[in-house]
Amino acid sequence: MTDSFSSTDDLRSATKLRHAKSVCFAGPIELELGGRLPEVTCAYETWGTLDDDGSNAVLVCHAISGDSHAARHDADDDLGWWEDLIGPGKAIDTDRFFVVCPNVLGGCRGTTGPGEIDPTTDPPRPYGAEFPRITVADMVDVQRRLADHLGIQSWRAVVGGSLGGHQAMTWVTRHPKSVRLCVVIASSPRLTSQALGFDVIARNAIQTDPHFFDGQYYDQPHRPDTGLAIARMLGHITYLSSEAMEDKFDPDRHDPRQIASSFEQRFSVGSYLAHQGEKFTTRFDANSYVTLSMAMDLFDLGANRLQLMETFDESDADFLIVSFSSDWLFTPRQSQDIVAALAMLHKRVTYAEITSTAGHDAFLVNQDIQQFAPIIEARLGKTDSSKPVLSPVEELILSQIPPGASVLDLGCGDGSLLASLRDRNHCDLVGVEVAQASIVKAASRGLDVIDYDLNHGLPAFTDKQFDFVILSATLQAVSNVAELFDEMLRVGKLVIVSFPNFAYRTLREAYVERGRSPRAPGQFNYSWYDTPNRRFPSIADVLDLCRDKEIQVRKELYFDSATQKEISPDNDPNLNAETAILVISK
Amino acid sequence: MTDSFSSTDDLRSATKLRHAKSVCFAGPIELELGGRLPEVTCAYETWGTLDDDGSNAVLVCHAISGDSHAARHDADDDLGWWEDLIGPGKAIDTDRFFVVCPNVLGGCRGTTGPGEIDPTTDPPRPYGAEFPRITVADMVDVQRRLADHLGIQSWRAVVGGSLGGHQAMTWVTRHPKSVRLCVVIASSPRLTSQALGFDVIARNAIQTDPHFFDGQYYDQPHRPDTGLAIARMLGHITYLSSEAMEDKFDPDRHDPRQIASSFEQRFSVGSYLAHQGEKFTTRFDANSYVTLSMAMDLFDLGANRLQLMETFDESDADFLIVSFSSDWLFTPRQSQDIVAALAMLHKRVTYAEITSTAGHDAFLVNQDIQQFAPIIEARLGKTDSSKPVLSPVEELILSQIPPGASVLDLGCGDGSLLASLRDRNHCDLVGVEVAQASIVKAASRGLDVIDYDLNHGLPAFTDKQFDFVILSATLQAVSNVAELFDEMLRVGKLVIVSFPNFAYRTLREAYVERGRSPRAPGQFNYSWYDTPNRRFPSIADVLDLCRDKEIQVRKELYFDSATQKEISPDNDPNLNAETAILVISK
Repeated sequence: MTDSFSSTDDLRSATKLRHAKSVCFAGPIELELGGRLPEVTCAYETWGTLDDDGSNAVLVCHAISGDSHAARHDADDDLGWWEDLIGPGKAIDTDRFFVVCPNVLGGCRGTTGPGEIDPTTDPPRPYGAEFPRITVADMVDVQRRLADHLGIQSWRAVVGGSLGGHQAMTWVTRHPKSVRLCVVIASSPRLTSQALGFDVIARNAIQTDPHFFDGQYYDQPHRPDTGLAIARMLGHITYLSSEAMEDKFDPDRHDPRQIASSFEQRFSVGSYLAHQGEKFTTRFDANSYVTLSMAMDLFDLGANRLQLMETFDESDADFLIVSFSSDWLFTPRQSQDIVAALAMLHKRVTYAEITSTAGHDAFLVNQDIQQFAPIIEARLGKTDSSKPVLSPVEELILSQIPPGASVLDLGCGDGSLLASLRDRNHCDLVGVEVAQASIVKAASRGLDVIDYDLNHGLPAFTDKQFDFVILSATLQAVSNVAELFDEMLRVGKLVIVSFPNFAYRTLREAYVERGRSPRAPGQFNYSWYDTPNRRFPSIADVLDLCRDKEIQVRKELYFDSATQKEISPDNDPNLNAETAILVISK
Repeated sequence: MTDSFSSTDDLRSATKLRHAKSVCFAGPIELELGGRLPEVTCAYETWGTLDDDGSNAVLVCHAISGDSHAARHDADDDLGWWEDLIGPGKAIDTDRFFVVCPNVLGGCRGTTGPGEIDPTTDPPRPYGAEFPRITVADMVDVQRRLADHLGIQSWRAVVGGSLGGHQAMTWVTRHPKSVRLCVVIASSPRLTSQALGFDVIARNAIQTDPHFFDGQYYDQPHRPDTGLAIARMLGHITYLSSEAMEDKFDPDRHDPRQIASSFEQRFSVGSYLAHQGEKFTTRFDANSYVTLSMAMDLFDLGANRLQLMETFDESDADFLIVSFSSDWLFTPRQSQDIVAALAMLHKRVTYAEITSTAGHDAFLVNQDIQQFAPIIEARLGKTDSSKPVLSPVEELILSQIPPGASVLDLGCGDGSLLASLRDRNHCDLVGVEVAQASIVKAASRGLDVIDYDLNHGLPAFTDKQFDFVILSATLQAVSNVAELFDEMLRVGKLVIVSFPNFAYRTLREAYVERGRSPRAPGQFNYSWYDTPNRRFPSIADVLDLCRDKEIQVRKELYFDSATQKEISPDNDPNLNAETAILVISK
């Protein structure tokens, strides 16, 4: 390890990083954009023990201002930045897994970065702004060398949020057979133009700081603290939702906290930001901020789905993608683009958009972590293997599906139907749901579930991608019915639609006798004014639609729950059947 | 007028402002926060002619980086910043109105600002950062002096967007009887904490620029251009929607335009922002940016509705509030807060949220201006006074409303019912609508219409605010029915609900005979799968709801359009009437 006159010595010796180890890789290290480093030191922390077969290693990738200290090592240790996710018995269980968290290349928390001495200089001086331009791929390359050093040939999982998500995705694109599970949280295939704009401004603030000295400020009496603080304050605003900022600052808007600062103090948000900015300058290096933000800005998996698909094509990893509803910097829409590319490639992917008010920061907030932690836990093997209980209608649906068929279940609920198919050894099974609790439940069964609004069609899937598409007990909730039918018939070779019959005998009787809105029995026992259902078709209505759209009805099954018997198609099912199951195709 | 060594001489002599006049007000001018100015020069432009009775004066207030040149003066003149709104025959018709647009106090386009020479200094030097802290109220005070100077005692209208909207609102709060119409566009009662945060960062960037020299940079070889450019770039991002930025930059993300700039060029958005930033530094003064943004940040009409109501209470102006759906800096929600306060005060207010992809900038974009221009035009007297045509059901509803009653019409469509009431000399009439075209049509009739989603209740209105609340041909579109009933009965002394009867004879026959979803005739002739309607109650269903909620049904009117006759309540209206009109109360 090279001697360093830089501030990273101070940073590294900070108590929090006392458990960090480091290893030095001899160079020259070739970088993606053509530069090179004479050698690279990698600082990292580990938890747990590597299995004899090396199958339980989990790589945790931190975000732009993070470090190797993802979690504490013992009860006396400082808490880590992902304490809520990593530890004994937690979702990333350090009793079962060997967890590794390195500081990224270009950082300032132990791994080689702009603040380290360039060993080729005489007299020795830090790289400063001469540090070569690095990419996320270069970060991953250092991690690969670390894996080799630790005797790890493949990762059970690579997990990261924000820039950490970029690293996770880069792992599966550059080492497509070396990752079993890829977890990408609050991330994106590339930054939005808006996010890029903010980064450009932030970097300019740093680079035009009077104390920047082209990045060679380490020996100077002053650092480019103003520029770095401006950059951090800007980042801070983008990581919070507007709502979260109101909650934080509105009550005492005009009461600035009393802190000693050269920054504007007129508003409480001003003093808060100033405090955040100044705090940051004591623990982070300006050159690192420039280096890492540029790596994020250069990160680009593709501008459209085809390019994304090319990127992920060779990987045989399972994927878990998580976004947050109020994250306006790395939007849910961007995560959906990743999911769509993966789904169309028939990769195993689960996607959840977590409802949260915390903005981009949610991936670090306990309340929000508890929402996606169970899904990670399930993907890491802790699944609910309880036997699903099916209704008679569901059993009937199952009976229509031959062994081994691939199935897409739209509105899959807690995944009972898909779990039953899996118990029968089907493989290519995907569920679609919007209810967060159901998504978690289905994922906890080890199923792939995608958080998806059916009213937008099924753009994530390709033509005839599945043997069967199922729409069970969901039709009544759909607004864009005609479009969904078209889409289901595009995506599935066969489609099974099951729905309650709103011309069922008892409903007609009620309507005619009582002159009131038909009120479906059982689970659909709502009133006319509070039913969440949108559509109320009879069997005849749906058959009419099929006829109008030239859809073939290959099979009709009808069920009456009053008698618990099937109703023959000849026995006026539109009157006598409570539930219909139609197998259709185009 | 004092001699000035400042750059504003250069700015003022810019061709664009060659029509600007100016007047000097002798001081001392006392300022709201305690400072004072020895004198104030006000630069302004005018269009049209003031009537003999001075009743046609319109004040146009510009936003942070604007100036007096709102529109051209002749065919050879430069276009103004609100060219699409102001001119002969345009919404703000310079053939009919005397239009005045001054440069704001604190600006740098002719009116006294930090760049002007402080006449009390010896040797003379510009105010610089010593310019006293000003507020929007101080800007308005200068405008009041200008009005006096021009012989204007009251404004036909005060119109502004963003900071211009702050000025308009301040006019009616400080001079409550002097404004007939207050038009507030893309504005807010106070900045969000997020917007505040961005302004704090922008100001810090300026004030920490190495060439700032505590604001006394005018004689220096360099200006604080970097800091000002950073501030402008930041503002620029916040004025655009994320979508607008993608459209602008995505296609050539990695192809920076070729401009000579010291700013980062790696990305096209970077070079674009750099260009915007640099362009801005040639035409705007850094001290002015600090002064004006601080005035915006200090602007605060109140944190809650009661405070807002206190603010507007004395004003007898009519109000027109406009927001844009993709404006994330001055959000529609904030405009709704203003509207709610005004509505609860029984002020005449019209509110439209214009669907737009342009973000905050929309108020300056022609395509979006064309959406709200007709409403301004109507409010300035160009109304559609064509006689409304009512259906028999609407005539029946009208028959239940005694002369002079105040009426709130929920789902008022193009305002036919309200216009008929107005023709009968009713006064306190308000419509609620969500369809933009209908809002414009109703507003064009000169009616007050509020853009409002009924599913959120009626929080804008106070208890028993109206003699009648009407819900006609709208019930079937509402999701939160129970809540809306509660709210209507809270807000109206009496409520008239009119709806199609889904147990009408022909519907029952169709359902029973054909076993298909009842399909309402006429205007409701949708299919089960594409109807936009949410609720399908029969008369009996609605009466049941009233009974369950202990709502008194004071009158029942039933109508059968087949026979064009009323159906008596004794004649099984649930079977025989196509439409019901219930007058209810609690």
